[in-house]
Amino acid sequence: MPTGFDMEPRLAAVLEHAVSHPGKLVRARLVYAAVLQHAGGEGRALQLACAVEYYHLSSLLLDDLPCMDDAQTRRGYACPHISHGEAPTILAALALINRAYALAGFALSDQTAPMRLSAMACLDSCLGVPGLVGGQAHDLAYAQSDRSVRRVGRIAAGKTGALFWLAVYFPALVARPNADEARQLKALCIYWGRAFQALDDLGDIATTERNAEPNKTNGRDQALDRPNLALVMGVPATRRRVGQLLRQAKRALTRLVSQRSDWVYLQNFHRECFAAKASGGRSSAPVKAVAA
Amino acid sequence: MPTGFDMEPRLAAVLEHAVSHPGKLVRARLVYAAVLQHAGGEGRALQLACAVEYYHLSSLLLDDLPCMDDAQTRRGYACPHISHGEAPTILAALALINRAYALAGFALSDQTAPMRLSAMACLDSCLGVPGLVGGQAHDLAYAQSDRSVRRVGRIAAGKTGALFWLAVYFPALVARPNADEARQLKALCIYWGRAFQALDDLGDIATTERNAEPNKTNGRDQALDRPNLALVMGVPATRRRVGQLLRQAKRALTRLVSQRSDWVYLQNFHRECFAAKASGGRSSAPVKAVAA
Repeated sequence: MPTGFDMEPRLAAVLEHAVSHPGKLVRARLVYAAVLQHAGGEGRALQLACAVEYYHLSSLLLDDLPCMDDAQTRRGYACPHISHGEAPTILAALALINRAYALAGFALSDQTAPMRLSAMACLDSCLGVPGLVGGQAHDLAYAQSDRSVRRVGRIAAGKTGALFWLAVYFPALVARPNADEARQLKALCIYWGRAFQALDDLGDIATTERNAEPNKTNGRDQALDRPNLALVMGVPATRRRVGQLLRQAKRALTRLVSQRSDWVYLQNFHRECFAAKASGGRSSAPVKAVAA
Repeated sequence: MPTGFDMEPRLAAVLEHAVSHPGKLVRARLVYAAVLQHAGGEGRALQLACAVEYYHLSSLLLDDLPCMDDAQTRRGYACPHISHGEAPTILAALALINRAYALAGFALSDQTAPMRLSAMACLDSCLGVPGLVGGQAHDLAYAQSDRSVRRVGRIAAGKTGALFWLAVYFPALVARPNADEARQLKALCIYWGRAFQALDDLGDIATTERNAEPNKTNGRDQALDRPNLALVMGVPATRRRVGQLLRQAKRALTRLVSQRSDWVYLQNFHRECFAAKASGGRSSAPVKAVAA
C-alpha cells in the first residue's frame, strides 16, 4: 500500500503528543517484565509492551473526546482534541490500534497455532464489546442505569479490568500457563482491576490536597454522573473492599509462585503498586504510579 | 474477560444499524470469491469477507461523524451518530475493527508464518497511516493543501485504494502469488482504486438526474472543499483518465490469467463493475453497485 505520503501534520502532532506524554508506562513495564521473565526475548517483549501501551493510549484519546468524558487536560497537558482537533485525535487512536495489532501479530508470529488463537481471543474480548468498548459504552450510559454496586463493579471490570487482563494475562500466554495457573492469573486480573478502579474512585472523590491526583480534575465522576464505587457504597466500605481484593490477589500470587517461581515478577508488581496502600501505609505514590 | 454484561443498548443499536444496511457488499463478495477460488474453504472465506466488510463499515461510521464529513444520511438512512449519538458510533466502529482483526486472525491461524506476516503487513499498511487513516487525515486537510492532481490521486490511493488492496490483494495471499503475480495484483489495486475514486468524483459533481447517486448528497466535495479529480482536472480529462486506468487494469488481468486461470474471478469482477462504463455504455448500474 505505498502512497508515498508524508504524515498529515495534525495527525502527526496528535501521535507525537500521545507518545511524548506516556505517564508511568506501568502496563507496558508489566508486559515487558513478563515476556523477559518467560524467556520470550527482548524484541518480543518490546513489541508486546508497545502494543499494550498503544491500546491504552488509544482508549485515553477517545475517552477524553467531547462526546465521551469531554476532558480538557490529561497528565497536565491540554488534550489533543483541544489543541489539534477531534478528527485527527480519532484518526490517531485508530493508527495506534492498527499499529498495536500489527506489533502483537509480529511478536507472536512464531508461536504455535493454539497459543496464537488464545492470544487473539484474549485481545478480542479485552478490546471489544466484552471489554474496553462495552465497558466505555456502559460507563457513558451509567446515569440512566440502576446505579447498583454490581453495575459499578461490572463497568470497572470492562474498563480497568480489561487493561489489566491485557497487561497480565495476555503476555503470560508466552509462558503457556497450565489450567490452574490460567485460573489464578484470570482471578488476579479481576482482583487487581477492581482494586485499582476502587482506588481511582476514592481518589476522584478525595477533597484533601494530600489525596488529590495532581494530573486529574477531581470530582469528575459526580459531576458527569459516572460510576464510582465510593459514591455508591461510601468511603469506608470501599476501603474495606480494596483491602479484601488485595488479600485475594495476594493469595492468588502465593499459589502462582508456589507452582512456578517465574511468576515472582507479579508478586513484585503487587508489592510496588498496591502493598503500601493496602497495609494502611501513608505513601500513595505507588498507587498514583499505577493510576498515571 | 468475562464481564457478564448485556451489550449497552445504544452501542447495540449502532452495530445493528451498521450491519443491517450493508450496501451491495461488493468488497465482501470479492474477498469471498477469492478465497473460494483459491480453495481456501468456505469458513475462511466467510471470516475474511466479514473482516474486510467490518473494516469498511467502521470507516463509513467514522467518516460520517460531525468532526469529519458531517454527513446526515448514508444509504438512504439517517447516520447512526444522528439517531444514536456520536459516542456509541465511535465505540461501534472500534467494536467492528476489533472483531475484524479477530476474524482475520482466526481465518489465517493455520497459514505459514511468512504468509501470516505478509497478511499482517498488508492490514497494517491498508488500515494505518499509509492507508485509510492517513488518507482520511489528508482528505480532511485538503482545503489547506496545494490541491494538485497528484495530491488528489494520492488521497484516493490512501482512502479508496486501501480498501481495494484489502479486497483484492489481502485475500489473494491465500493463493501464495509468485513475484510477478504479486506485482500485477498490486498494480491492479492501484488502477481499480483510482478508477473507482475518479468515477465517484464524477458522480459527485454530476447534476443530471440520470447520473446522480440516489443514496448520496451530490456536490459534497465542492461544498466541503474535499479532493475531487473532476474538480481539479475537469470532466473530460477525468473521463479519459478513467479509460486509461481501466485499460491498464485489463492488461494486468490478462497477464494474471495467462499465468494461472485461478485469477479469472478478478476478470469477471472487472467486467461486471467497470466494463460497461469504460466502453461508454449507458448503464451505470454496475458502477453504482461498486460505489454502494
